[in-house]
Amino acid sequence: MTQKPDAALTAVFDHIDANRESFLSRVMDYVRYPSISAHDIGIGEVAALLVDMIGQIGLDVELIPTTGHPMVVGRWNKAPGAPTVLLYGHYDVQPPEPLEAWISPPFEPTIRDGRIYARGIGDNKGQHFAQLMALESHMKVHGRLPCNVIVLLEGEEEIGSPRIADFIATYRDRLKADFVVTSDGGMHPSGLPTMTYGVRGIATFELRVRHARRDVHSGNFGGVVPNPIWTLVHLLGTMKNAKGEITIEGLHDAVIPPGALEKAAAARLPLDLPGVMSELGLSRLDAPADRPFYDRLMFHPTLTINGLHGGYGGPGSKTVLPCEAFAKCDIRLIDNQTPADVLAKVEAHVKRHAPEVEFVYGHGMLPSRVPMDTPWAQILRDAITTAQGVAPLEYPSMGGSLPDYVFTKTLGIPAFVVPYANADEANHAPNENMKIDCFYNGIRTGAALLDRLGRPSM
Amino acid sequence: MTQKPDAALTAVFDHIDANRESFLSRVMDYVRYPSISAHDIGIGEVAALLVDMIGQIGLDVELIPTTGHPMVVGRWNKAPGAPTVLLYGHYDVQPPEPLEAWISPPFEPTIRDGRIYARGIGDNKGQHFAQLMALESHMKVHGRLPCNVIVLLEGEEEIGSPRIADFIATYRDRLKADFVVTSDGGMHPSGLPTMTYGVRGIATFELRVRHARRDVHSGNFGGVVPNPIWTLVHLLGTMKNAKGEITIEGLHDAVIPPGALEKAAAARLPLDLPGVMSELGLSRLDAPADRPFYDRLMFHPTLTINGLHGGYGGPGSKTVLPCEAFAKCDIRLIDNQTPADVLAKVEAHVKRHAPEVEFVYGHGMLPSRVPMDTPWAQILRDAITTAQGVAPLEYPSMGGSLPDYVFTKTLGIPAFVVPYANADEANHAPNENMKIDCFYNGIRTGAALLDRLGRPSM
Ligand SMILES: [Zn+2]
Ligand SMILES: [Zn+2]
Repeated sequence: MTQKPDAALTAVFDHIDANRESFLSRVMDYVRYPSISAHDIGIGEVAALLVDMIGQIGLDVELIPTTGHPMVVGRWNKAPGAPTVLLYGHYDVQPPEPLEAWISPPFEPTIRDGRIYARGIGDNKGQHFAQLMALESHMKVHGRLPCNVIVLLEGEEEIGSPRIADFIATYRDRLKADFVVTSDGGMHPSGLPTMTYGVRGIATFELRVRHARRDVHSGNFGGVVPNPIWTLVHLLGTMKNAKGEITIEGLHDAVIPPGALEKAAAARLPLDLPGVMSELGLSRLDAPADRPFYDRLMFHPTLTINGLHGGYGGPGSKTVLPCEAFAKCDIRLIDNQTPADVLAKVEAHVKRHAPEVEFVYGHGMLPSRVPMDTPWAQILRDAITTAQGVAPLEYPSMGGSLPDYVFTKTLGIPAFVVPYANADEANHAPNENMKIDCFYNGIRTGAALLDRLGRPSM
Repeated sequence: MTQKPDAALTAVFDHIDANRESFLSRVMDYVRYPSISAHDIGIGEVAALLVDMIGQIGLDVELIPTTGHPMVVGRWNKAPGAPTVLLYGHYDVQPPEPLEAWISPPFEPTIRDGRIYARGIGDNKGQHFAQLMALESHMKVHGRLPCNVIVLLEGEEEIGSPRIADFIATYRDRLKADFVVTSDGGMHPSGLPTMTYGVRGIATFELRVRHARRDVHSGNFGGVVPNPIWTLVHLLGTMKNAKGEITIEGLHDAVIPPGALEKAAAARLPLDLPGVMSELGLSRLDAPADRPFYDRLMFHPTLTINGLHGGYGGPGSKTVLPCEAFAKCDIRLIDNQTPADVLAKVEAHVKRHAPEVEFVYGHGMLPSRVPMDTPWAQILRDAITTAQGVAPLEYPSMGGSLPDYVFTKTLGIPAFVVPYANADEANHAPNENMKIDCFYNGIRTGAALLDRLGRPSM
């Protein structure tokens, strides 16, 4: 599978090579601006900067207000008959604290050992800036783009994208595209490029029990007063057995088992199991014991107790029989499970097995999975291979949850994640960084994708 | 069962009646002295006061040092052929905090509505002072006691009697007696006198689990990394089932089921179940559902989870897969269970079902139970009835744990608890109090017991 660039792309690659120093200094200028959504710092300034930047590249651009931070939307639609790609990213960054842990200040970008250090350089400014430079390079070299493009940059991703679902639903007509590419997160630790087809969903809930009005003495009341921790222990024991099987009735009903392509892709992924276990300090994997490693993260719902608390937790012992306890849980979802259905089934289970226990709905996010045989996957695969000289590792799914469903379910189009940052980007941590080579490869990958989408062979 | 006082006792009762004001002012003087074992305040002074007081009454008295606070031991053994009763109490008190919650200052005894308010008046100074006044009254009226007496007053009861077991074992020859009476705690809320034949023992332990080296993200690692809370849930589920049955192998082996007398006594005890449940805010009793109320507290071991903690416990949700969790538990023991045997069985169970879980030994105390048909019980019953005009409620056991085994097992003699304080004495709390009538009834009861022990008919 050799993917040689055509002449049009070669010209763009040459432009990129010739402008490396300029791109580097411009991205460093960009991350100098804080845009901390959690603290509402610098959001408006950076959004305005982006509007200006995207306009300068030659796209139509608008700042669409929401009840929170505005969405920046750029658009180029002058390639009739060519496909439309939606490039999603986010312009807000994590708070930089603790400041004293940074070797160079978070908003004074600094180069050390071939990496740019700055808050937001990897997550996500350096990555969507690379996409913008790919657009700019095509425009500068050819005066046009090979395909239609929508750029969507959110300002609230780091506070959980509270308005993205509503926004996409509201503006679905203006966001019509053939597929979505998100460049965020890190590549494989080996440096190999990756592309991801899906995410697990999530549904959270809490179980609360109170029996007596107050804590009592275990001697004076042990045997008489019910213990809420025992109530939770016995209820939870009916929800997942010691073999690791979730036993909530109906919970798996909607699960679509992985197809042959997904299974084969998961089996092909590189794995250093002893390395993973030693890094985590594990002597075994979670039950069930017989599941392949990546299957555990991609093809099965999980029921995690995030926390369980009741009674005495201090030093030594205390002969208390506590009056209340709670457990916070999350369930990771697999297509086609939905938070609403799954939580209804958990609630029904709780009502049936322990009606005394209060079931409290948490939040939810739908899962998302793109079929691995979609033609857009082949285009993306080709572009990555052309730009980086090596085929990407392909992840049928991530273990975590992102609102990809807003693209795959609300817009009804495939959505892929193609990270440009190095695996050790230290996002959300001090000394966040992006390798300069990764940044350039990102620009090349973006450029190759645009080029590939403009070729009639598709 | 009318118990008329004989002439000798009538004379003592008359003396008590004639000296009510003096006894009252003397007990108020006594509780004016703080003796807070937890803060090591005033212990030596009160111990010296007691030595003086007991000597004045006419007993041999010694202050026996321990590695902690000294034991005060009084002795009168000039009734050859008559039985010996050991009267146990404690001269230390709880700290009085929070001071602002006291209506009158804790160490300025004050009378309101027929009650003396002061720290230690009920627990335990007023009660053992009543015993001393019973001794004094006999001495004043008859110049002698009707039986042999050992008075043992401890100075560390409120910090858990850490040295009583060693002390009793070391001095067992000097503490030879026929039986023990402890006047501590409260009577029945109705005001009826009570006598108690036993206590449950206790054994505490902790279960600790750690899987990964650090907390991880439930999306990135859910399904891969084992969850220590689930490990505890499943282990605990093998230790007690949802029906409330403890399922630790061998745990019940040593349990002696209650005899007919005990069962009948428990069934005779007054019970306002709706009142108990409403005061505690309960909608049901603990499982198993079919056990009589008092049986639950007296005749069955319990396995209480005092606390279970792991993972996130703050507001909202957090998608964490925690790396460690622990549970603190206590088991209340029934004769002839021992902490050593019970904990060995729990440890073996844990090793068998969840070898990853660390089992940590806590502390233990043997249970104690006196056969209800011992002749000393009849003597005590008679004395209480004579002094208070009504037969006592008889509790085969308390639910809680006190070191009565030092008498019943180390000394090998029956030990009874006969509380003199009102049920709402507010021990360990602000506004601790004792009804003046209870105080006088205590002196009468002590006096009647001494008298009864001197009567040849026994
Ligand atoms: Zn982020
Ligand atoms: Zn006490």
